[in-house]
Amino acid sequence: MRIGELSRETGVAIPTIKYYVREGLLPAGRLTSPNQASYDAGHVRRLRLIRGMIDVGGLSVSAVRDVLAAVDSPEESVHNVLGAAQEAITPRTTAAPEGMEEARRTVAELIRRRGWRVEPQNPSIEKLAVALATFRGIGHGDFEDVLDAYAEACERVAAADLAWAGRNAEVDGLVESVVVGTVLGDAVLSALRRLAHVEASARRFESLAEGAGGR
Amino acid sequence: MRIGELSRETGVAIPTIKYYVREGLLPAGRLTSPNQASYDAGHVRRLRLIRGMIDVGGLSVSAVRDVLAAVDSPEESVHNVLGAAQEAITPRTTAAPEGMEEARRTVAELIRRRGWRVEPQNPSIEKLAVALATFRGIGHGDFEDVLDAYAEACERVAAADLAWAGRNAEVDGLVESVVVGTVLGDAVLSALRRLAHVEASARRFESLAEGAGGR
Repeated sequence: MRIGELSRETGVAIPTIKYYVREGLLPAGRLTSPNQASYDAGHVRRLRLIRGMIDVGGLSVSAVRDVLAAVDSPEESVHNVLGAAQEAITPRTTAAPEGMEEARRTVAELIRRRGWRVEPQNPSIEKLAVALATFRGIGHGDFEDVLDAYAEACERVAAADLAWAGRNAEVDGLVESVVVGTVLGDAVLSALRRLAHVEASARRFESLAEGAGGR
Repeated sequence: MRIGELSRETGVAIPTIKYYVREGLLPAGRLTSPNQASYDAGHVRRLRLIRGMIDVGGLSVSAVRDVLAAVDSPEESVHNVLGAAQEAITPRTTAAPEGMEEARRTVAELIRRRGWRVEPQNPSIEKLAVALATFRGIGHGDFEDVLDAYAEACERVAAADLAWAGRNAEVDGLVESVVVGTVLGDAVLSALRRLAHVEASARRFESLAEGAGGR
C-alpha cells in the first residue's frame, strides 16, 4: 500500500509516519519508484505498536526507539534482551528527594522479605525509593504500611503476565510480548485501580451511612 | 525563610519556584518588604508535593494545577471533590484506535462481572478501552484473558489504599491523601510490578531448567 493508505489505516498523519521512519522507529517502505514507497501489513502493525507505546504507555519517541531496538535485535540470551527492554521502558529517574538512603533501605528490606531475586542495580529499585522518599517528604511516611499489600498484588499480576507472555511467545516473540504487556499493562492497571477505588469508596461510605443510621 | 533557603531546602531552583507561583501552583510568599517575600514550612511541603506529582507521577504542570485546585477548594460533598480530583489526575485520552466499540463492551462486561458501581462517564473506562483496543490492534487480543487477575489485584490494592487514606484523613485532608496515594501509588505499583516480573521470570526459567535436567 502507499503511504496515504497506511495513514488512513492507522490514523497516523503522513508527516508523523515520515518522522518515525527518519527517527528509526519504523522501517522505510520498499521503493517502487524513485519517489514512491510501498508499505505492508508489518508497517500497519508496527505503527499501531508505536502509537500504543506513546498514547497509552506515555513513552517518549526516544524511549520507544530504545524499546524497539531491544525487540528487533535479540542477542543470544533471552534474559539479557529482557533486561535491555526493561531498562528502555524504565527511564532512569533524575529526581533525588531528601531521605533517599532510608527509602533505599526500606526497598531492600521489602525485596528481602518477599524473597525476590532482583539485581541491586535494577532501575525500578531507585524509582520505588524516589516514590517512597517523596511520600515521606510530604508527611505520608506511613504509606509504607501498605507496601506488602501492593507487593502481593504485583506478585499475582506478574504471574498472570508471565503466563500470558509465555502463551504469546510463538506469535511474535517473547520480548515483544513482555514489552507490550509491561507498558500497556501499566495503563490497564492504573485505570482498573481508579475504578476499583470508586467501588471501594462507595462500599466504605455505604457502611458508614448504615452505621450512622443504626441499621 | 527567604526564597534562597526554600530553594536549598527543596532542591527546586529559584526560577522554577517563581514559575510555580505565577502559574498558581504555589501560594506567593508573605511580603516583608516591596522586594522580599517570606516562605514557611507550608511552602516547603507544597513544593515537595508538586515535584512528586511531576517527577514521580509524571503529571504535567497544568494537571498539577487542576489537582491542587481540587485539593484546595473542597465543596460540600467529599464525593464530588474526589470525583474532581480523579478527573484531574486522569487526563482524557485523545487516542482513538480502531475497535473501540468492542473494547468498550469488554470493559462494561468486566465492570458488571466485578460488581463495581462506577459511573459510565468515568474517564478511566475510556482509558482502559483504548489500552484494550491497542492490544487487539497489534494482535494481542488475548490479553483480555488476564483482565480478571488484574481486576482482583486492583480490588486488594484499592482496599489497602482506602484504609490508608482513611487513617490519614485527619492529618491533612482525605482528598489530598487520595490524590497523593493515587498518583504516587501508580508509580509504586509500576515499579513493584517490574520487580515482581524479574522474580516470576527467574522462577519460570529455573523450573524450565530443572525440567530439562530431569531433576
